[in-house]
Amino acid sequence: MKLLEERIRKNGKIFDGGVLKVDSFLNHQIDIKLYQEIGKEFFRLYGGENVTKILTIEASGIGIACVTAEFFEVPVIFAKKSKTKNIAGDVYTSKVESFTHGKVYDIIVSKDFLNAGDRVLIIDDFLANGSALKGLIKLVEDAGATVVGAGICVEKAFQPGGDLIRDMGVRVESLARVKSMSMEGGVEFC
Amino acid sequence: MKLLEERIRKNGKIFDGGVLKVDSFLNHQIDIKLYQEIGKEFFRLYGGENVTKILTIEASGIGIACVTAEFFEVPVIFAKKSKTKNIAGDVYTSKVESFTHGKVYDIIVSKDFLNAGDRVLIIDDFLANGSALKGLIKLVEDAGATVVGAGICVEKAFQPGGDLIRDMGVRVESLARVKSMSMEGGVEFC
Repeated sequence: MKLLEERIRKNGKIFDGGVLKVDSFLNHQIDIKLYQEIGKEFFRLYGGENVTKILTIEASGIGIACVTAEFFEVPVIFAKKSKTKNIAGDVYTSKVESFTHGKVYDIIVSKDFLNAGDRVLIIDDFLANGSALKGLIKLVEDAGATVVGAGICVEKAFQPGGDLIRDMGVRVESLARVKSMSMEGGVEFC
Repeated sequence: MKLLEERIRKNGKIFDGGVLKVDSFLNHQIDIKLYQEIGKEFFRLYGGENVTKILTIEASGIGIACVTAEFFEVPVIFAKKSKTKNIAGDVYTSKVESFTHGKVYDIIVSKDFLNAGDRVLIIDDFLANGSALKGLIKLVEDAGATVVGAGICVEKAFQPGGDLIRDMGVRVESLARVKSMSMEGGVEFC
C-alpha cells in the first residue's frame, strides 16, 4: 500500500536495534484518515471471505480493527493481556512472548465471543517475530473457528514472523513490508 | 442516550461489589454499529467546540475514540500505561489509581502530540472514581492545552468521579448514567 509506505518513509523514525517508530500516525497518535484507508484496503483484500468476526490484541490493534470492522460490518473482539491468574469465566488462552519487554504473558478471549462457525480476520499493527499473531491464531483454533487470514499494517520482513505464519498455511497480507532499515539508509520496502 | 441504556439493560451483567460487565458489546467484544452511534452522539454534543485532538487511554477507550474521531476529523492520541521507569523521549505523565487492580500506575503521552493550542476532547468507556479522567486532564493541562470536555459512555453516578470532575469546572457528558444497580433489581439510570 503506497500510502502507508510513503507515510513510513516520511514520518517513521528508525532507532538502534531494529526499532521502527511510527507513533506520530499509527500507534500513539493516530491519523484517522490513514486508518480509514487501511480499513478499506483490508476490505478490498478480505471482503469476499465472509468474515464474521475481527480479532485483534490490545492495545494498538484495537483502533485499526474497529475502523476496519466498519467496512466489514462485523463485531471486533480484542484479546486481553491477562494481569491475573484467576480469570472470571471461561476463556481461551495462549502465551505470547514480547521481545520488546522481554517477557511472556497470557492473552485471553472469552469463550462467549468466539464460536465454531466463526470466520475470523486477525488485525494487528506490526508483525515481526510472529509471537502475538501465533497466539491469536491459537485462540481461534481452540474455538474451532476458521482463520480467514491476517491483515497487518507493517511487517518487518527481515524478521522470521511472516514466513513462519505463512508456512503454517495462513494467509498474511501486510500493507507495508520492510525489507531492511538503517539509521543511515532509511527504510527499504519489499 | 436511550440506545446505550437499553443495551446495558438487555446485555449488561451485574456482579457483586458494584461490577457492571458490558463486555459483550462495549469493551471486549465490540458492536461497531453501537460505536458509530456513540461517536455520532459525542459529535452532536461537542461538534461546535473546535476540537483539535481526541485523547483517550489504553485499552478500551481506543476504539471508541477512533470511531468518534471519524466524525470530528481530528487525530486521536492514546495515553499509554507505562511499564518502564525509563521512558525514551519527552513525555507528559500523571498517576492513575486502578481500583479494579488495586494499584497505582503512570500514564504517559509524548510531548510531540499535545500542544498549547490544542482543544482536547477526552473519551473513555467508564467513569467511576474519576482517577483515569483526572490523570488525562492533568496531561492536557501540563501541555498548556484546553480540555473541551469529557465524553463518557457509562458513568457510575453512585460513585464520586463524575461530581469530582464537574466540580473542577470540566464539562462531562455521559451517555448512560447509572444511578443504582443490583443483582436483583437490575440497572436504574439517572
